Amino acid sequence: MSIEKKLKPELASGFKDRIGNELILKDRLIEIIKQNFQLYGFEPLETPGFEISENIGKFLPDEDRPMSGVFGFKDENDWISLRYDLTAPLARYVSENFDSLSKPFKRYQSGPVWRNEKPGPGRYREFTQVDADIVGTQNPAADADLCILLADTLNKCGLNKEEYLIKISNRKLIQGLLEELKITNETVKLTVIRAIDKLDRFGADGVKLLLGNGRKDKSGDFTKGAELTENQSEKIIRFLKIDNFSQLNSLSTNPTYKDGIKELNEIFELTILSEFKNQIKFSPTVVRGIEYYTGVIFEANLLYKVKNKKGQEVEFGSVGGGGRYDNLIERFTESKYPATGVSIGLDRLLFAVMQKKVIKSKDNNPVIICVLDKKLMPQYNKILNLLRLSKINSEIYSGEGNLKAQMKYADKRNSPAVIMCGENEINEGAVTIKNLKLGKEDSKKAKTREDWKSSKVAQVTINIENLIDEIKKLF
Amino acid sequence: MSIEKKLKPELASGFKDRIGNELILKDRLIEIIKQNFQLYGFEPLETPGFEISENIGKFLPDEDRPMSGVFGFKDENDWISLRYDLTAPLARYVSENFDSLSKPFKRYQSGPVWRNEKPGPGRYREFTQVDADIVGTQNPAADADLCILLADTLNKCGLNKEEYLIKISNRKLIQGLLEELKITNETVKLTVIRAIDKLDRFGADGVKLLLGNGRKDKSGDFTKGAELTENQSEKIIRFLKIDNFSQLNSLSTNPTYKDGIKELNEIFELTILSEFKNQIKFSPTVVRGIEYYTGVIFEANLLYKVKNKKGQEVEFGSVGGGGRYDNLIERFTESKYPATGVSIGLDRLLFAVMQKKVIKSKDNNPVIICVLDKKLMPQYNKILNLLRLSKINSEIYSGEGNLKAQMKYADKRNSPAVIMCGENEINEGAVTIKNLKLGKEDSKKAKTREDWKSSKVAQVTINIENLIDEIKKLF
Repeated sequence: MSIEKKLKPELASGFKDRIGNELILKDRLIEIIKQNFQLYGFEPLETPGFEISENIGKFLPDEDRPMSGVFGFKDENDWISLRYDLTAPLARYVSENFDSLSKPFKRYQSGPVWRNEKPGPGRYREFTQVDADIVGTQNPAADADLCILLADTLNKCGLNKEEYLIKISNRKLIQGLLEELKITNETVKLTVIRAIDKLDRFGADGVKLLLGNGRKDKSGDFTKGAELTENQSEKIIRFLKIDNFSQLNSLSTNPTYKDGIKELNEIFELTILSEFKNQIKFSPTVVRGIEYYTGVIFEANLLYKVKNKKGQEVEFGSVGGGGRYDNLIERFTESKYPATGVSIGLDRLLFAVMQKKVIKSKDNNPVIICVLDKKLMPQYNKILNLLRLSKINSEIYSGEGNLKAQMKYADKRNSPAVIMCGENEINEGAVTIKNLKLGKEDSKKAKTREDWKSSKVAQVTINIENLIDEIKKLF
Repeated sequence: MSIEKKLKPELASGFKDRIGNELILKDRLIEIIKQNFQLYGFEPLETPGFEISENIGKFLPDEDRPMSGVFGFKDENDWISLRYDLTAPLARYVSENFDSLSKPFKRYQSGPVWRNEKPGPGRYREFTQVDADIVGTQNPAADADLCILLADTLNKCGLNKEEYLIKISNRKLIQGLLEELKITNETVKLTVIRAIDKLDRFGADGVKLLLGNGRKDKSGDFTKGAELTENQSEKIIRFLKIDNFSQLNSLSTNPTYKDGIKELNEIFELTILSEFKNQIKFSPTVVRGIEYYTGVIFEANLLYKVKNKKGQEVEFGSVGGGGRYDNLIERFTESKYPATGVSIGLDRLLFAVMQKKVIKSKDNNPVIICVLDKKLMPQYNKILNLLRLSKINSEIYSGEGNLKAQMKYADKRNSPAVIMCGENEINEGAVTIKNLKLGKEDSKKAKTREDWKSSKVAQVTINIENLIDEIKKLF
């Protein structure tokens, strides 16, 4: 026993571990998404986690957090930051490699992003995004493509068409209204947009407070509002209550607002041609929290209730979204470089899909070959080779425990079967297989090999030639 | 034109972008490796990028770099660090979740790691590792398993058995020698180990300088040596020159040294049973740079010459390696928790495999449907649906350019074909397909649709019912 102070094994707050079948499913979803992105003509790109801080900017709604919610490090010459999304690094990449890229440039990327947010239940500071972007065109067909891509991808990940909706709007609508209402201060505009973004969480009344003087949350923290007049707030709330695209026209004659309607119209003309026409609908409540969007914006919401491990319904944000960001790349270059993109929040999607258990991850747990006698290692290895050649996940027990410990291990691993061979079996060219799926209850009682042998349930001794056939029956 | 100062689009030093087929191959390798790790009975784990700094410690050989080469960040309560490998976070995970884990615990993990190294050619500060570890046993069978797993995985990734070698040694050999030579100071010991680790790069003479007073590199930077006596250095150099396992016995009678030989013996008794017996060989020059290793260590080296883009041979480190680290988890817990692991350096492996072009990534580039007439978008969408239903990567051109721009785009994307339909084709239920693989030269000259039509090479107009068959001929 050591007397030195031991470290406390724990994670930094706002981070989490994942293990087992959840990860098999996560990999599977990423694979499905990437394949679908390729099907739609996107090519892969991988940028690193770090970027020069100035290059990716600070476009998050976390203005109160250190460095506006971005993790920054002082490097030798510059400050460098961990990316907070995959879009800002794309803007840097496109500017840097402009000449060699196709026009338009269509890429997908997946990977972790980091946000130095205030940790809270279900709010993590690292999460995985999978993005697809089309850079270098103002063609509304590009925006339509992305909405259809998002709808199709969710479908291929196992959600039925009735279970989600892509809500689409246009930043130009709210910008037009702000112009009409003579709200010109950039900070106030941003506060208004962020207030609207909270509609799902705080309701219309909460948003109205945030448009006015401000709102106090449960913990007593006060969020300052946009300080609009009653008339101004009223008009915005009226806009948010529109639930049909055709009603938009009557609310304002502002040219930016009208332009927003026209763009949406062009998109709907295209999405209506797809099999996801009913999954893509106008909603004024979509604004997206990130600052760089300039036009069309959209997000995917689930239409079924999502529950946590305790069975309680959880407030569940969008599983993906995106929009048009026509000015982000202009920060680097004199030329106009309009762009549009979609981002899937993989962790949320995984959580939602896991609840439905649509995509079954195949049985990955290994068959365990027990070590009854170390002298028989050559024979155990022969059995192992047979199994692995048939692509059956398998291992020779690699710990130092007795048979009881080995069975406990197999149980913990949820192994479909253990293989037990002593000298007798080996001499006879036989193997004993215990089916753990059937024999789970039995196995808890047995202590010695004789106990196993006497347990008739789900245990067979067969010629080694029949090993693979017998094991395959288990799956 | 804007007059504000534009940002300079560039990456932070020591980081890189990847694009296109290289990434398709990277994903493919990761998939092969994960599948093989599952075949060997490992289950997946994913820990986050950040850990509490104290928990993952500083075991890198970069003692001169800020925070010993680790990216650290002051959080609200603790310092947190980006992981520099996947092993230190595993130690934290195992201690934190001890009770719920199988004994032994076998997990794999893949993901980026970060090292705040001095950037240099081919030295990046972010790279991808894929690890497998067996925690909770001192059984040499576990070490043997990992050596075989490494050899098998490289083979499945496309390397022939003649193209690589797993070199294996034991830290106890050098520790025994240090004991015998009465070298007890921990810093000196570490300097000796790190000097040996440089053998590939600096040769025996360079190592001798680092064991003695020190070594000046080309840039004039001086690295202080371990300051051993001539006799001490001599014995270590003699050890490094042993090239046959059976010669080890005569060099020392130190008990730790003898123990090291015994452990290696037990491992060879098992690896010799595998089909990779000739790929796993003793070599005294393997020490591994990381501080936490305590016993068996091994690494995979390529036996063929690797060249850079300019065709020059490059100095190429190991593509993977690992070893036993019996004390790492003890930092958290009173109980002994020995462990052993292997790590594959995916970026290096990718580079090596790309040179051999063994694994062909399938043709992922999309078929482009040209937009000759916007009014025909419904018809173009029908064609698109046909292609995608047959899993053919495809898109309707989403930019705003004329036919010339569209052909240039298709060319840049290395598209296998473009589909061109005007009103005539549509009325006749026909499509025109241009095979770009055949017609590459031709396409550069043509400017109008009439030019295309007159070019007889590789262009066919067919009934739309035959579209899929015709396109599939291209692959």
